[in-house]
Formats: sequence, C-alpha cells, structure tokens
Amino acid sequence: MRDIQFKDITVVYETEDLGLDAPIMVEGLPGVGNVGKLATEHLIAEVGAKKFANIYSKYFPPQVLVEENGIARLVSNELYYHKRRPGEKHDLILLVGDYQGLTPEGQFGLSSAMIEIAKRYHVSKILTLGGFGVGHMVEEPRVLGAASDQKMVDELTSIGVTFTRGEPGSGIVGASGLLLAFGQLSGIPSACLMGETSGYFVDPASARALLRKLMAILDVQIDLSKLDEKASQIDKITSKLKELEQVEEKASSDDLRYIG
Amino acid sequence: MRDIQFKDITVVYETEDLGLDAPIMVEGLPGVGNVGKLATEHLIAEVGAKKFANIYSKYFPPQVLVEENGIARLVSNELYYHKRRPGEKHDLILLVGDYQGLTPEGQFGLSSAMIEIAKRYHVSKILTLGGFGVGHMVEEPRVLGAASDQKMVDELTSIGVTFTRGEPGSGIVGASGLLLAFGQLSGIPSACLMGETSGYFVDPASARALLRKLMAILDVQIDLSKLDEKASQIDKITSKLKELEQVEEKASSDDLRYIG
Amino acid sequence: MRDIQFKDITVVYETEDLGLDAPIMVEGLPGVGNVGKLATEHLIAEVGAKKFANIYSKYFPPQVLVEENGIARLVSNELYYHKRRPGEKHDLILLVGDYQGLTPEGQFGLSSAMIEIAKRYHVSKILTLGGFGVGHMVEEPRVLGAASDQKMVDELTSIGVTFTRGEPGSGIVGASGLLLAFGQLSGIPSACLMGETSGYFVDPASARALLRKLMAILDVQIDLSKLDEKASQIDKITSKLKELEQVEEKASSDDLRYIG
Amino acid sequence: MRDIQFKDITVVYETEDLGLDAPIMVEGLPGVGNVGKLATEHLIAEVGAKKFANIYSKYFPPQVLVEENGIARLVSNELYYHKRRPGEKHDLILLVGDYQGLTPEGQFGLSSAMIEIAKRYHVSKILTLGGFGVGHMVEEPRVLGAASDQKMVDELTSIGVTFTRGEPGSGIVGASGLLLAFGQLSGIPSACLMGETSGYFVDPASARALLRKLMAILDVQIDLSKLDEKASQIDKITSKLKELEQVEEKASSDDLRYIG
Repeated sequence: MRDIQFKDITVVYETEDLGLDAPIMVEGLPGVGNVGKLATEHLIAEVGAKKFANIYSKYFPPQVLVEENGIARLVSNELYYHKRRPGEKHDLILLVGDYQGLTPEGQFGLSSAMIEIAKRYHVSKILTLGGFGVGHMVEEPRVLGAASDQKMVDELTSIGVTFTRGEPGSGIVGASGLLLAFGQLSGIPSACLMGETSGYFVDPASARALLRKLMAILDVQIDLSKLDEKASQIDKITSKLKELEQVEEKASSDDLRYIG
Repeated sequence: MRDIQFKDITVVYETEDLGLDAPIMVEGLPGVGNVGKLATEHLIAEVGAKKFANIYSKYFPPQVLVEENGIARLVSNELYYHKRRPGEKHDLILLVGDYQGLTPEGQFGLSSAMIEIAKRYHVSKILTLGGFGVGHMVEEPRVLGAASDQKMVDELTSIGVTFTRGEPGSGIVGASGLLLAFGQLSGIPSACLMGETSGYFVDPASARALLRKLMAILDVQIDLSKLDEKASQIDKITSKLKELEQVEEKASSDDLRYIG
Repeated sequence: MRDIQFKDITVVYETEDLGLDAPIMVEGLPGVGNVGKLATEHLIAEVGAKKFANIYSKYFPPQVLVEENGIARLVSNELYYHKRRPGEKHDLILLVGDYQGLTPEGQFGLSSAMIEIAKRYHVSKILTLGGFGVGHMVEEPRVLGAASDQKMVDELTSIGVTFTRGEPGSGIVGASGLLLAFGQLSGIPSACLMGETSGYFVDPASARALLRKLMAILDVQIDLSKLDEKASQIDKITSKLKELEQVEEKASSDDLRYIG
Repeated sequence: MRDIQFKDITVVYETEDLGLDAPIMVEGLPGVGNVGKLATEHLIAEVGAKKFANIYSKYFPPQVLVEENGIARLVSNELYYHKRRPGEKHDLILLVGDYQGLTPEGQFGLSSAMIEIAKRYHVSKILTLGGFGVGHMVEEPRVLGAASDQKMVDELTSIGVTFTRGEPGSGIVGASGLLLAFGQLSGIPSACLMGETSGYFVDPASARALLRKLMAILDVQIDLSKLDEKASQIDKITSKLKELEQVEEKASSDDLRYIG
C-alpha cells in the first residue's frame, strides 16, 4: 500500500487496473429517504460488483464505525466496479458510502475528486440517484429526471422518466447535483434520477422504482425481491403508525366531546 | 474548452478577447429586495449584453438548478459585456448570478477574483447596485450612495444620489461593499448605489429608481416599461395583503367585542 | 528553540531524541466524562512520565489559560514519554491536553500529525482511551473495546474487555476514533478502550476501570489510591444530589396533594 | 503602492521605516466593554500617534463602513506608532481596529501576522488590553493581569495590577490572549491587562483604570479628562436606567396589589 496522507481527500486503491470499457458511473450516496443509497447497494449486491477503492476525507465526520466483530473502520465512501457478463451491455463503476461531504467546500472537493476518477477510467455516462421528497405518502412513486443535455432528456423520457416543469423547483443539492453538473461541464453525458418519496422513512419502494428505470438504461436484469421484502416491512411499520395516529385522533376527539 | 478544475473559483470564458475600451463594471448580485439583481438583469436585457464567462465556486452552495426543459446547470455567477453603440458613451461589463459567496472567506475570494478580471479588462469605474432595507413601505424610493473618493461623491450628488450622514449606518455587507472597497484600494473609482426598499418583497420599483440614476451616469436610454409592469404587479399583491390584514384586524376586533 | 510558526499545527519539542524502543502510544484527550483524560493523567503522574513536546494549533480555541501564579499558557496538547524501568515491559508515549480539535478538519489535521509522530518514534501499538456515555449511573463500569484487527480483539477479550454487538452503536467520534483508524490504515495495531460512564459527571471510577485494563495490557503496576479518593468524592456529591432530588420530589408531591 | 492581494491577510504599509528603538506594542481591539479599544484609542489621540499600516483580511466580515462624507472604507485593523518625545522612555506601536478575527482560524492567522510585525520592529514588550466582565456594576474597577513570566508578574504587581488565583477562571480568549501567548513563545516579555467591567456597557471608567496602569508602565503622562467626560455620560445613562427600573418595579408591585 502506498503511503497515505489522511488530509483533504485520500483515495486508497485496492486495484487500479480495472480493464473496463467506457463504464457507466452510478452514484448512490445517502440522501432523502436514502433512496439512491438503497438502489445502488442493491445493484452492487445483485451484480456482485467488487470494491476497488476507499475514499477517506476530512470532509466526512471524524468518526469510526465498529463492525459486529469489534473491528473499527473509518467512515468513507467506496468505489465498486462490475465488468459486463455475456448478454450485458455496460461495464459499471459504483459509488456508495457512509456520508456525503459535510460542508459546501467538502461537497465540491469530493465531487471534483470523483470526476477525476471518472476521467481516469473513461467513464461514458454518469447517473446519479436520489430521492425527491414530497412530504406525503406516495403510492406509485414516479421517477423524476434532470440531465446534462437534450439527448439525455430524450433517452430518459423514452423509458418513462418524468421531466416536469418546476420539479424539482429548488434544484438538486449535494453529490447527485454536483456530479451531474461536473459531468456536464466535462463533456460526459450525465443525469440525475430521483425517486419520489415522502422523505419521512428510508424508502425501498422508491429505490425499487429507481432500479426499474436503471435496468432499462443499463439493459440488465436485477432480482428486486429483497427490496420487495424491505418495502413490505416498511409498509407494515407505516400502517401501524397510521393506525396508532387514528386511535390517538379518535381518543382526543372523544376527549373533546366531553368538553363541548 | 480548457481543462476545468472545480475547486475554489473557476472562471470559464466563452470569449476572452472582448475588444472593450475602458469599460464600466456594474455588479447586481442577489441581496436586499433583489434590487441590484433586478436592475442589472433589466439592463442586460435592454441593451442586449452578451455573456462571456461563467464563474463556478465552492463558495456557492453545492446545487444545480433545473431549467424548464429538464436540463441542469450548476449555480454560478455570470459576466456579460456590451460594446457601446453609436450615441452611447461607455462599454460595459455586467456581473449577475444566482448567489453571493456563502461565507466571509467566499465573499473575499470571489470579489478578489472579480477585481482581477476588472484589471484585466482595464475597467475604468465600478458601480455596485443593491437595496437599502428600511423596514417599511417606501412611496418614492431614494437612491443612497457610498463612494471611493470625493470626486465620485460629487459626481453622484450632481445627479441626485443621496449621501446622508449615518445612512447606511451599519455599512454595506457583501459583494456590493467589497467590490467598492477593492476598487478603491486598486485605484479604480467606485461607488455603491442603494435603492431604498422595504426589504420584505422583491422590489422592481426600487430597481427602477436605481436604473434612472444609472442611465444618467452611463448616459444611455433604457426602456423601463417591463420594470413598470413588474412594479404594478407587486403593488397589487401588497395592496391585497394590506386589505387582508385590515379585514383580519377588523375581524379580530369584532371577536374581541363579543368577549368584552 | 527553533523559529515557530503559529499556524495550522506546531509541534514544539523540548527533547526530540527519546531513545525509546517500540513504544506504546496512549491517548487520553478530553471527552465523555473526561474518562480517558483522567486515566492518562493519572498514568503520567504515577509512572513519572516526562513532557517532550507541546502541540499548538489553530484548530484549538484561541485562548490562553492563566496558572495560579498569574502566568499564561496557550491551550495545547502535550506529549509525554516514559522509558521502561527494570521489570516493566513497554516504553510509553502519552498524549493529553486541554482540548480536541474544534472542527472535523481540525480533528483530521491533528490526528494526522499525531500519526506522523507515532511513525517517527516507531510506535508499536496505539491505545486510545475514552468514555462510553450510557445516560444512567453505573455501579460496575465495564470497559468496551474496538480494535484495528482480530488479533487485537482477541488480546483485549482475554483481559476482560467487552466487545458487544451494537456497542458503541454510533461509532467513536473524535481523536480516540481517528487515531485508532489512522493506526489501522498505517499498519500499527490499535484499539480504543471505553469506560462506561453516565456522561453527566467527570468520572474517576470509570477511569479506574480503564486503568485496570491498561495495567494488564502494559504489564505495569500503578497505584490507584488517588483515583479512589476522587471517585469517593464524586460519589458523595452525586449522593447528595440524589437526596436533594428526592426531597424536592417529595416536596412537590406534597404540594400536589393540596391541589388534588 | 504595491500590488495588493485581498486574500487571507494583507498588510498595506503607509510607511515602513519607522526608526523606532525597541518599541512596546500595545493592543486594544474590540472586546468586553470595549475597554481595551477605548484605552488604546485614547492613548493614540493623546500622544498623537501616526498610522503606518492598514490590515485587511478575509477573517474580518465582508463589510465596508461609510464615513460621514459618504466615502467608504473596508473594515480593517490599523497600526500606529509613536516615537518617544524628550522625557518619555518608550517608543510605541499600537494596534486598534474595527473587528477581531471572526473564527479561531482567523484569530490565529491575524495574531501570527502581528507577531511577525512585532519581530520586524524588534518589539521589546507586548501589552494587550481588555475588559474582564464580572456581570455586575463595578464602583472601583481593579486591573487584573496575566503575564508571560515571573518577572512581568512582579513588575506589574509593583504598580498595583492584581494577580488573583482563579481570575480570569476561563482564561483569556481572542487577540489579547493570543498575542500574549505568541509573545511568550517568541521570547518577548508580554502581559495582558484587564479592566474590571460589568460587560453590559461600553466602559470608559474601566478604560481609565487601565490607562492609569499603562501610564505607570510606560512612564508617560496622559490627559484622561476626555475619558472622564465619557465615563460621567455613561454614569448618567446607567443611573437613569436604574431609576426607570425602580419606577417599573414599583408600578408592577402597585399593579399586583390590585390583584391580591
């Protein structure tokens, strides 16, 4: 291992020569409903992608996490890669991690480093994944898009991604926005896909909607059954919470009757 | 396009050789009542100024905005230029944008970069535009001034800019202040013009007052009718809000009568 | 003394050539219940360790402390060393101080500097000491662990350090976490020992529990009587506080009786 | 004027060759009760010290102040000098300004720059002036001290400066603390003098107490009558506030009588 400086941003490679052909980069860091993170972690598990680098940075919190075996690891972002199997069309580089940069400076620094890596591996397309918080429960989450250019807009529209005037009104904040913009400014076709979500829970149903679009773009088949399970678990929890709320509301309206 | 580093401050030129003669630099970034921004954007539209550079920076929020066509763009500041037409007296460089620097360090960094650009193009005068929040509705907004030197004070006084002891009492914060100061310290005559505004609304009427002074300084004619329209729209909104307030006040005093 | 720059991080050595043989580095900076600080300061006093360096940094608060004799000193971290005496097995380097770094950047910067020093003196093991806040009074504080590798886990388990799944759930924040992680990434066996503590008081009883484990690891005998004294003082204070609480609770329930 | 970079810290000299002999540096930046600032500004006015440098920095707020004549100036710190007149014993360098550094990093950066200037001019002693907030009105403000070494403690004790165990308990924060510490670490005898003050008002009476000690140390005579005037003005204001308070208290106890 090369000598490591634990300042600013450190990329520690486990393998550097990946032998990839114009890979697509997929970003799924924590965010609204953890939708992008859930989707990308599921994709990594299902295609059996391999980790090739850890990213450490002063822009993450000064924290270690302790694994179940008692062994510590510094919070980080991680890069995985996947070489296409027969029948698949695209090599992949996947970015996941514990945190996004804590400050605007950190966000810019980390996304800059990521674009350098994208250029190094001749990334042909960048897809950033996130959640679009709407503040209420969503039955059938749409997937909203924002893209670097008209061709990407057309391509995504053709597979059912929604481009609606004024959504997202406040733009896209964080890594999903910056990687799209830095891709655009570097001449790499890029897009952000956002699964609708209440924003109140970790949302596997929204991640599932995202992955269906991703399967169409990447032209791969991924088993979604584990996300289905997680989604129905969350459904049960939210249903119970709703029942509790209704009980409470009834109780409090009963109370009020005595006052009236 | 040259290779771009997305760190600190990046100026991406679309055209570098502008062929300008001692241009006047006008700054109108977001601020109180967005007065300076409205005025400068109106000026850009009316004289048909052309964009020549985008400024990206870690000192802005890590955010992309999504245009109506679904295409994203990184938040930025923009530089426009205008070569004087027959009958006009001054070439112009105009600075507008989505945000000012988020931190003191960002403000200093960005205004430093802007002064380097001013020197590069041999800017002969810097005019920064802003709002002066007074906390109440203003019928006839005055335009207050602060300048780099006595000659500028005299020049501005002669066209009706107000210099009053103790206004603005707390000084001028942000780009409008720093560009004035950096101009002053660099030997470029500079001034800040501030349109009076309540500070509660985007204020086209105050921007109009600013532009009237600017027309006198720059010796150009600008059609203000679009600002007139915006100002009367805002007038209607604020009138309705006042009515609502009065209705509510009446209602609540009616309520109180029943209690008494 | 060499010329000192008071920026970023400055290490001012009183002695540089320590003649140590593969020392163990022990960190005890302020934290939850000041458990690590108390334990390390007690260890320094009991083995008679000598100070060899002061660390000053812009990452500490801009503050001087005033000693009882009226003489000021800039807040700092300090490094001590101890050469093993006949019968002892390990040379020691000990890190204590007034503050940890105030920001994530400061934490990363300071721990990076500390790892450079660890490498310079060929440190063979890093032990970071802290408190594990549980939010309630603890009769017999356990010592929890997190380690760089399985061998360290086994070694610490054998002397009664507790490795429990999900504790600490949120990981370890600050110098105790970072030095462990940087040790791990640099190939230096490292561990963090955390004494259980309420988190409400400075906790000498928890520090005593930590030191018992440390005595087993370092194979030294340390007199704990001064910590015993401090612990019983704290016991008295907390007992009195409990009594007062009970008196107040009784009083307020007496009050309530009159209302019911 | 040399080309100026408006980043980090910029020292713009009006005169560089001051011809001073081992001057004493006095710092009086804004702080508790503005005691140090009032005292140093009074000293500058009374001895007729001349400004020789402006200090600009991104560590100050991004702000210009507007003078009564409408001319703007960037917020700054300023350095003055005074060559001793016949009968006086010490040359002086005096530091005053609009603000202290806004962040710990700014405080360290600015005080570092100031110590470089102290070394450049062979400063023989550093005296930092501040207020010591006690939270209640003070009839006869004491002057408390903290010093770099025992000799300074003795010297200051001999002229009536108070060194009391535990005061100031929390140390000295900001430029007054850092310049003392950096002086100490650079081998320049240094001390901080703190005038007792309530901390609620700008306090010329405390500044007067400071200046009396300063006159003894510097062996100069300074006319304090202007400070006397300011002090009696503040006295009148605080007396009126007290009366008002008593009237209000009486009124509200009168009100309460009607309820009882």
